[in-house]
Amino acid sequence: MIDLLAMTRSARQAAQSLAIMTRARKDEALMTLANLLDSHTDAVLNANAGDIDLAGEMGLSPALIDRLRLTQTGLRALAEDVRKVVQLPDPVGCVFDRKVLPNGLQVHKQRVPLGVLAVIYESRPNVTVDVASLALKSGNAVILRGGKETLHSNRALFEIIQQALTSCEMPSGAVQWIDSSDRELVLSLIQMSDAVDMLIPRGGAGLHNFCREHSRIPVMTGGIGICHLFVDQSADQEAALRIIHNGKTQRPSVCNALDTVLVHRSIAADFIPALIDNLQGVAFRLDSTALECLQVGSIPSSIITPAGPQDFDTEWLSLVLGVKVVAGLEEAMDHIRAHSTGHSDGILTRDQANADHFVAQVDSAAVYVNASTRFTDGGQLGLGAEVAISTQRLHARGPMALEELTTYKWVIVGNDHIRE
Amino acid sequence: MIDLLAMTRSARQAAQSLAIMTRARKDEALMTLANLLDSHTDAVLNANAGDIDLAGEMGLSPALIDRLRLTQTGLRALAEDVRKVVQLPDPVGCVFDRKVLPNGLQVHKQRVPLGVLAVIYESRPNVTVDVASLALKSGNAVILRGGKETLHSNRALFEIIQQALTSCEMPSGAVQWIDSSDRELVLSLIQMSDAVDMLIPRGGAGLHNFCREHSRIPVMTGGIGICHLFVDQSADQEAALRIIHNGKTQRPSVCNALDTVLVHRSIAADFIPALIDNLQGVAFRLDSTALECLQVGSIPSSIITPAGPQDFDTEWLSLVLGVKVVAGLEEAMDHIRAHSTGHSDGILTRDQANADHFVAQVDSAAVYVNASTRFTDGGQLGLGAEVAISTQRLHARGPMALEELTTYKWVIVGNDHIRE
Repeated sequence: MIDLLAMTRSARQAAQSLAIMTRARKDEALMTLANLLDSHTDAVLNANAGDIDLAGEMGLSPALIDRLRLTQTGLRALAEDVRKVVQLPDPVGCVFDRKVLPNGLQVHKQRVPLGVLAVIYESRPNVTVDVASLALKSGNAVILRGGKETLHSNRALFEIIQQALTSCEMPSGAVQWIDSSDRELVLSLIQMSDAVDMLIPRGGAGLHNFCREHSRIPVMTGGIGICHLFVDQSADQEAALRIIHNGKTQRPSVCNALDTVLVHRSIAADFIPALIDNLQGVAFRLDSTALECLQVGSIPSSIITPAGPQDFDTEWLSLVLGVKVVAGLEEAMDHIRAHSTGHSDGILTRDQANADHFVAQVDSAAVYVNASTRFTDGGQLGLGAEVAISTQRLHARGPMALEELTTYKWVIVGNDHIRE
Repeated sequence: MIDLLAMTRSARQAAQSLAIMTRARKDEALMTLANLLDSHTDAVLNANAGDIDLAGEMGLSPALIDRLRLTQTGLRALAEDVRKVVQLPDPVGCVFDRKVLPNGLQVHKQRVPLGVLAVIYESRPNVTVDVASLALKSGNAVILRGGKETLHSNRALFEIIQQALTSCEMPSGAVQWIDSSDRELVLSLIQMSDAVDMLIPRGGAGLHNFCREHSRIPVMTGGIGICHLFVDQSADQEAALRIIHNGKTQRPSVCNALDTVLVHRSIAADFIPALIDNLQGVAFRLDSTALECLQVGSIPSSIITPAGPQDFDTEWLSLVLGVKVVAGLEEAMDHIRAHSTGHSDGILTRDQANADHFVAQVDSAAVYVNASTRFTDGGQLGLGAEVAISTQRLHARGPMALEELTTYKWVIVGNDHIRE
């Protein structure tokens, strides 16, 4: 029997102890975790193989199976990620916005942990370790609930985390795992508003909507990216082909992979055939103007399909790419405003004024100039790792790591000040 | 008929225009608003008198009536607050966390408005102007919904705001007001998750719980303060009496007014009689040890009551003060952890180590040393004004003003970078 009340109480107690723990003690536990991950790869890979087998039997899509697969190299990288978190500065206790008011009151803000986090995620067992290590380092307790398709992998990883906590005499309530795929438990957990300070759902739109609808805890949503690149008239077309290839094919199953390319009308006739030629193995959904750029019958219909009404509102998570011709920068930005999920959108251009205008006007979590959208990632952007990529506007936007797992308190020191 | 869908659409359009508006244009509208407030005091005061009359008829408590009363001086101060907001720097466009990554990617964050705000508030018609001016300055559109007890005042203030917008050719959708006390409208509004980016309820616990339970929009809650001061053994007792007098009596009806005084056991016998003597007109709820510090029968029972089970979990909002004797700093902090709403809590001490320990351990939005809790206020802490005082942990904590009404986007400029 899983007792959520006991879990959240133990998490709250652990959080109070973590909030005032020295950096050295937290880092020691993380180093222990990294070393245990290295020495237990076989156990984790065996557990993961069990999940992969079951996933095949359940008929999961190749994109989903790719997301839950762990490898020797991947596990080593995971341990390295934990060591990177050790190297990162401790955000807790940082003082900022220090000032002395005209009346002599000394005021500053000071970072403190959020408290108790709950993270509900689907597939991707590496999330278990990434989130646990960032939570520990930032002084938060965390309750994890992974998907049923990674139950074995998560159980193996969670046991390693608990071993690290125990051997460093850290409270075991600091990282807890709901070893069940019972959805009723999730519903109960997300309504425990005093017990949990932040809820992070990581998964599809269904999970996010479920959390938004039912949660009484502040929710951080994100991780759903319909990502755009606009190829401007002045773009370096060779570079554009490379960047689009990277955005679409380097890891198609993730949220920062490219979904839609918008092409300036004046270069469409040359660029679109070259684009299709450059993306072997990709299927395209083209708007009517883009279709006109292709010679009739030159490309099989398995590769080229006219874009349907939903195609520009779909996060592909696979080797499919939408292509649309636009009259220019303004129409490109209008399309992005209407269809982007506010995750990662960019412009490829050699025109500085157009780049500046795009950056000023497009309001996504990450706005790019002449780069692949694949960089929207905590590790890539120098945060060490990430707990999620926020596409909401409150609290944090884009990759969330240590600082984003903290809040602050105001500290006000007076000389017996009273308000007049 | 109030058409919420049309309101939110018009707010979204206005928000897009405000997001890229120059500071000069926003400041001009605010200056116009301040001048119109000065030239229309009679109209507002007449409307307010109507609300006060109705409040008396409805039998509202004196504390509530105090909260909704406007005066000539108060209105002039309100116009001055708007002029202060004009003087404040525009947060929109501010660049921070600029860095160049090892691979040469240029990364920074840039402040952008949140978008569309909804603020639901009870009494206090000055909120209408404070919130509208901070929203405009920070480039946000806002939908306001005041309480039925200030319907006339709010209508008069809203007309002045609309006049300012019109005369400066600003979109009228930038500030909208729900001219109705129909609660069903609130329920509909707070479920429009794509239409509104942040919901701020300002009022009692009932309103906050209603919003938390039903909202699909990210909610900022706050403004409920069970505020504590701990009088340490080493406190300057004369200063402590002045600070407590200020915290309790300067404006008892507001959230940062003092609710509970914790007194170190070793000074209780002297301090508690002096405390009671110094707070004429205040009624006390004393724990049993505090009661023992008083001579039997020396003070009438209308002033002194033994503290009941709920008294240390009550926000008084009136001239009532809880008093409890504690064994020392640790017990004081335990009491605060158990009973505080995380708003404003402080220590009065001459012992630096105790002050430091208190600041490190107590995790409230505002933590005080040797000052009145009455300073937890956007104006007092140098923010110009405030839209709310957050006691939640996500996004912002304590007084929320311009910066707290913004989010940021990541801007990533590459030199045709692709991810390896």
